[in-house]
Amino acid sequence: IAELSLDAAAAEKGGFDHFMLKEIHEQPDSLANAIRGRLDHDIGSSVLAGMGTSPRELAELSRVVLVGCGTSLHAGLVGEYAFEDLADVHAEVEQAAEFRYRNPLLGSRDFVVAISQSGETADTLAAVREAKQKGAFVMSLCNVVGSTIARETGRGVYLHAGPEISVASTKAFTSQVAVLLMMALKLGRGRRLSRDEGIRFARDIESIPTLVSRVVAQSERISRIAEGYAQNEHAFFIGRGPMYPVALEGALKLKEISYIHAEGYHAAELKHGPIALLQEGTPVIGLALDIPGKDKTLGNIEECRARGARILGIITEGDDEAAEFMDDYIMVPKTHPLVSTVPAVVALQLFAYHVARIRGCEIDQPRNLAKSVTVE
Amino acid sequence: IAELSLDAAAAEKGGFDHFMLKEIHEQPDSLANAIRGRLDHDIGSSVLAGMGTSPRELAELSRVVLVGCGTSLHAGLVGEYAFEDLADVHAEVEQAAEFRYRNPLLGSRDFVVAISQSGETADTLAAVREAKQKGAFVMSLCNVVGSTIARETGRGVYLHAGPEISVASTKAFTSQVAVLLMMALKLGRGRRLSRDEGIRFARDIESIPTLVSRVVAQSERISRIAEGYAQNEHAFFIGRGPMYPVALEGALKLKEISYIHAEGYHAAELKHGPIALLQEGTPVIGLALDIPGKDKTLGNIEECRARGARILGIITEGDDEAAEFMDDYIMVPKTHPLVSTVPAVVALQLFAYHVARIRGCEIDQPRNLAKSVTVE
Repeated sequence: IAELSLDAAAAEKGGFDHFMLKEIHEQPDSLANAIRGRLDHDIGSSVLAGMGTSPRELAELSRVVLVGCGTSLHAGLVGEYAFEDLADVHAEVEQAAEFRYRNPLLGSRDFVVAISQSGETADTLAAVREAKQKGAFVMSLCNVVGSTIARETGRGVYLHAGPEISVASTKAFTSQVAVLLMMALKLGRGRRLSRDEGIRFARDIESIPTLVSRVVAQSERISRIAEGYAQNEHAFFIGRGPMYPVALEGALKLKEISYIHAEGYHAAELKHGPIALLQEGTPVIGLALDIPGKDKTLGNIEECRARGARILGIITEGDDEAAEFMDDYIMVPKTHPLVSTVPAVVALQLFAYHVARIRGCEIDQPRNLAKSVTVE
Repeated sequence: IAELSLDAAAAEKGGFDHFMLKEIHEQPDSLANAIRGRLDHDIGSSVLAGMGTSPRELAELSRVVLVGCGTSLHAGLVGEYAFEDLADVHAEVEQAAEFRYRNPLLGSRDFVVAISQSGETADTLAAVREAKQKGAFVMSLCNVVGSTIARETGRGVYLHAGPEISVASTKAFTSQVAVLLMMALKLGRGRRLSRDEGIRFARDIESIPTLVSRVVAQSERISRIAEGYAQNEHAFFIGRGPMYPVALEGALKLKEISYIHAEGYHAAELKHGPIALLQEGTPVIGLALDIPGKDKTLGNIEECRARGARILGIITEGDDEAAEFMDDYIMVPKTHPLVSTVPAVVALQLFAYHVARIRGCEIDQPRNLAKSVTVE
């Protein structure tokens, strides 16, 4: 094993200070790679040959079970909304360790999607083996080609995100979400979604790289906002619907690299307990995009404000009404609610990155963390 | 409205410093009330007339959906394990606000259980209306007799826990769990559970008040342990399987009344991110009872210890091997894994109470919190 010289390492970062920032900026490209050739705009569906499902098999599916750990689990939670909304199929997300030890009820009409960037996550691999043993239809969603999980499932869809070096996952997460949205579209078109709806949704997916570019372009502005949040040791991220997993993922990013105790909460749960922790200046990051549930979330944000919290809102471009509720805000482009999870999470990735940078943290190699967890 | 004199209030607390402590101590009685007359030891099942289900309806159920908010949501998570383990029926838990806005897929073979101590929780009530509208079989699990949710569902099981005054719920939670275990037993006996298994499980439920007494009797010892954890502003609670919701509930109790930022995590998730937050002395409360998954959880605890965390273990009586892993430990009696959630959570209630008392917090009326959340 040859050690890279410092110069070589700097060159690999392509002029960025950290791999994480480089990978955040790569997302318009990595997402384009995940999407390229996989949408059929004529029939309003997606072409995911690796899924290896016949229309008949898709029609007979009774349930989708998404398994993963950490960031991949959060991608699965977005997928859950997509499968239920677009395909009217019951979807569930299971932490992989929980799934494998829980004696899951599975059968041939259950469709298990194992999500793992590295394809080597120990608990997820064990879940795959358990699901295959029980006769479920198992596929994988991995980034690393030829990885163990990809090989053992036999069928699956690769992310094509390129190597992810930063321990905190960014581009793998957004590509996982993009692929899950395409899978849900395919299932949806085999079930309840009309051709017109499919065509519209396929177009929204196609636009993801452009939407993400518009968020990445705000990096400097987000850096200035981050100054106001870098001195606190606690933070809460709140959201509803598909923005709930985005809140969880935003909190996880901040936690991993800045060592701030950030916690993601369902917006409606805040007042059933955690609101007790709010004090003057406690940061609350509210996902209040202009999608169903916005008014309820703004109501929850108002409650936090009344307790002195400092509010950073992630809101939809041009939504001046929502901006009024916030101390600071980042605007993301308007699109389908499920699709908007991607630009929203990119805003939170940049926020976490800049907070950690201001705090002087080891961004690419956070303490105690490994890139892929290959032990149980 | 007449104000209570201080003397009258003290008298109401029955010699305890706080309603919360009184209610923790009442649990052997409140649990006995929840269980009394509801177990049939001859056939190894439970008698819950309020459920209003025929054996045929029970046999045809395809899914149980448990809805609630806050502490009731955590009780639902324990129930999920119980329904899947004992009755081999798919069970899901939904945050009530999420359920109502999510356009849930429901039908006549879905069994929706609405859980609310007060029976007035706004989001849970709205979920009940939505589920009824969709033709699901809806019942309630409330404490307050004649409350709106109890009335609107028509069928249900009351907790008989008596009035709960403390904002932080204790006896309502444990009675919710006890009733859910009895419901799962009834479903199980109509499906896969043998008479012998049913008889054994009914006996384990019957023993809950005694098991809880043995934990309550350790209040002074737990108070001394709490001294070592009261100075920290962060804490993590970890568990697996049915101890995962216990970890969530333990963290919520500490958060609500001590204002420590306590977070519950699945033990297997810790190393996918949050382990980065551990520093010398960070408290980690590990639920490592002698039930399936113990060794994996002890492994996770060891990882936390290696990062300098201070470990409080909740372990099974006589498990000296597990005690070796801990800086401090509280022992709870050995019983069925699902049943052991009750004594385990009582240990965490006492821990949260004593930490908050040492920190001089307003225990019965935490800042920003209301006893029942009747707004959305």
